[in-house]
Amino acid sequence: MYARRGRVTTPNGSFETPAFMPVATAAAMKGLTPAQIRGTGSECILNNAFHLLLRPGAERVKALGGVHKFMRWSGPILTDSGGFQAFSMAQINRINEDGVTFQSFIDGSTIHLGPESSMRVQQDLGADIVMAFDDCPPAGESVAEPERLKRTLDAKDRTLRWLGRCVAAHCRDDQALLGIVQGGTELALRTASVQETCAFDLAGYAIGGVAVGEGTDAIERVVRHTAPLLPVDRPRYLMGVGYPRDIVMAVESGVDMFDCVLPTRNGRNGMAFTREGAIRLRNAIHADDAAPIEADCDCEACGGGFSRAYLRHLFLAGEMLGPTLVSIHNIRLFQRLLLDIRRAIDDDAWLQFRDRWPCVNQVQGRTPDPTGVLDD
Amino acid sequence: MYARRGRVTTPNGSFETPAFMPVATAAAMKGLTPAQIRGTGSECILNNAFHLLLRPGAERVKALGGVHKFMRWSGPILTDSGGFQAFSMAQINRINEDGVTFQSFIDGSTIHLGPESSMRVQQDLGADIVMAFDDCPPAGESVAEPERLKRTLDAKDRTLRWLGRCVAAHCRDDQALLGIVQGGTELALRTASVQETCAFDLAGYAIGGVAVGEGTDAIERVVRHTAPLLPVDRPRYLMGVGYPRDIVMAVESGVDMFDCVLPTRNGRNGMAFTREGAIRLRNAIHADDAAPIEADCDCEACGGGFSRAYLRHLFLAGEMLGPTLVSIHNIRLFQRLLLDIRRAIDDDAWLQFRDRWPCVNQVQGRTPDPTGVLDD
Repeated sequence: MYARRGRVTTPNGSFETPAFMPVATAAAMKGLTPAQIRGTGSECILNNAFHLLLRPGAERVKALGGVHKFMRWSGPILTDSGGFQAFSMAQINRINEDGVTFQSFIDGSTIHLGPESSMRVQQDLGADIVMAFDDCPPAGESVAEPERLKRTLDAKDRTLRWLGRCVAAHCRDDQALLGIVQGGTELALRTASVQETCAFDLAGYAIGGVAVGEGTDAIERVVRHTAPLLPVDRPRYLMGVGYPRDIVMAVESGVDMFDCVLPTRNGRNGMAFTREGAIRLRNAIHADDAAPIEADCDCEACGGGFSRAYLRHLFLAGEMLGPTLVSIHNIRLFQRLLLDIRRAIDDDAWLQFRDRWPCVNQVQGRTPDPTGVLDD
Repeated sequence: MYARRGRVTTPNGSFETPAFMPVATAAAMKGLTPAQIRGTGSECILNNAFHLLLRPGAERVKALGGVHKFMRWSGPILTDSGGFQAFSMAQINRINEDGVTFQSFIDGSTIHLGPESSMRVQQDLGADIVMAFDDCPPAGESVAEPERLKRTLDAKDRTLRWLGRCVAAHCRDDQALLGIVQGGTELALRTASVQETCAFDLAGYAIGGVAVGEGTDAIERVVRHTAPLLPVDRPRYLMGVGYPRDIVMAVESGVDMFDCVLPTRNGRNGMAFTREGAIRLRNAIHADDAAPIEADCDCEACGGGFSRAYLRHLFLAGEMLGPTLVSIHNIRLFQRLLLDIRRAIDDDAWLQFRDRWPCVNQVQGRTPDPTGVLDD
């Protein structure tokens, strides 16, 4: 049991850890205003450099005062480096030691992204926490074993070389650069990657290359192995994970920071998370249900008295208010979970905590694979 | 100059007139929460009986406590009778003296709507102000003159006979029933319809059958003729109109209440209304513009500091937040217009008012014809 409490301080405010960072991919969290995001209890949010590079362009955001001012979010922001999306989502022309060259999905233009350009884009965007540009191969179940192993090893080594170039290109003192550990599901490679990555004295370290299609058990094996190896005095960030169950497992392994599109992506499809598990609001069982999603929830949807019947109606009628309200509820559910996690650590009452959250004892589905999904 | 001030009192609160009622067709104003609607300064909103009858069903809404509770709006609500939509949007099987029989656009089921059933639906929904079921023919430019005239006359007469049946079926003392004047663009028929309709002692009277495709000039001719004929001691409601220019013209004619989908429909397509006229936020001219839609606007979008550049980005990226923020701005713009109208009447300063609103001296486009549009 490595669970731990902390506080990350940035030029735009601090946040308590373990922390969940909801995702505002293109500098917008779907239908939520910054005030509504704030109302969910979220302190730090995530933007994606890949999407903002393509549209509206990082230099434009810089000229408009940076991403905080652009989207009117006054708290901490973390930007992903764009590496993951460039590798998994883009029409790739070429991958080599300098990075990746691909076609913009917006206008077809040719774009290069590598360690230096990713750092420059993130410097232009101006987030508080920036990520090193990494080589993140998909889990690749269809690839034969020797080939998969070689690809995993190459990605780990290339990520390390790119980290050196990111450190050299990193020039804004007001931005914290985090390195990313790779190594796929090979625990020996993970160990090596931790040692190599942590040879760089960085503000924090992330576990990348998880939730790329390898399944819940493999995620758990990698996280339980890798997280405790990371320096105890720096924030540890598990990228792109996950369901409440995965988050709790990772907290137990000593992870401090999380991001995931689940609350918003599932929310706008009518799936609401609850302490007991997920429910599908489109189902007929909710048609006459005057109860809120959760009776004891203080979010704008539940606290505002919106019934399951009304929310179902919104989804069936295609009303935008449905996705907005359920996304708010879901993010708040995740923040309530993290709040209770932090309380349980403070109070040394972990088993009681687990009893209060039946959903963390369920396997509810795969952590979503962002590959190919452009809208989150 | 017949402009006048008033106050309409209902069981769920009162509102100042002249008043603009934004449209929450299916008991939802697109992406806006009730708190956001309230934040625009809107006091009374409109729901549509036709849409709610089809989905989720009026009896269901009744069982859930009525439409106020259903959508969590604590202020006054007006429901349209459904007649207009049944005639203009539905696949009609039969129109006769008993009403209209049509196929549901949701599940294809056969539905009958007539004076008695419309009143029952509106009683189930439980709005504060309900509308008589009327026969509202389209402007019908493609129909030959003698035929069009006969259809207009028939609709006027049928609307009157149906009004008698609505009055007989009206049984909730807490709901105010408003009659509707028809007569198309024939001023003599309008005069007759006013006399016949106002023979019924009702809480208020509406001018229907406008903004059905007849054009701005014809709307003005009908309104300037008809409004002053209505009883001076009852609220006058011009249905489905319109642009700021149309509203100001109608206020000058003595109209008290307005509803229109323009602020939300145009808002979610990236058109923002301003005091100077409408702007299209998708245009490239806004790409680097750090200014809000309007510098002196106090809405959540402008007051919140969201730039035109950011709003443009949201629309290009397909982010729901764009429609939400611009709809909020547009509704607030309409409410600021109405606030200034009321102030100008109070202060007897009408010409100065017109100078403050350049947009009311422009013909900005047709008042939208709701025919065939299912999403508003």
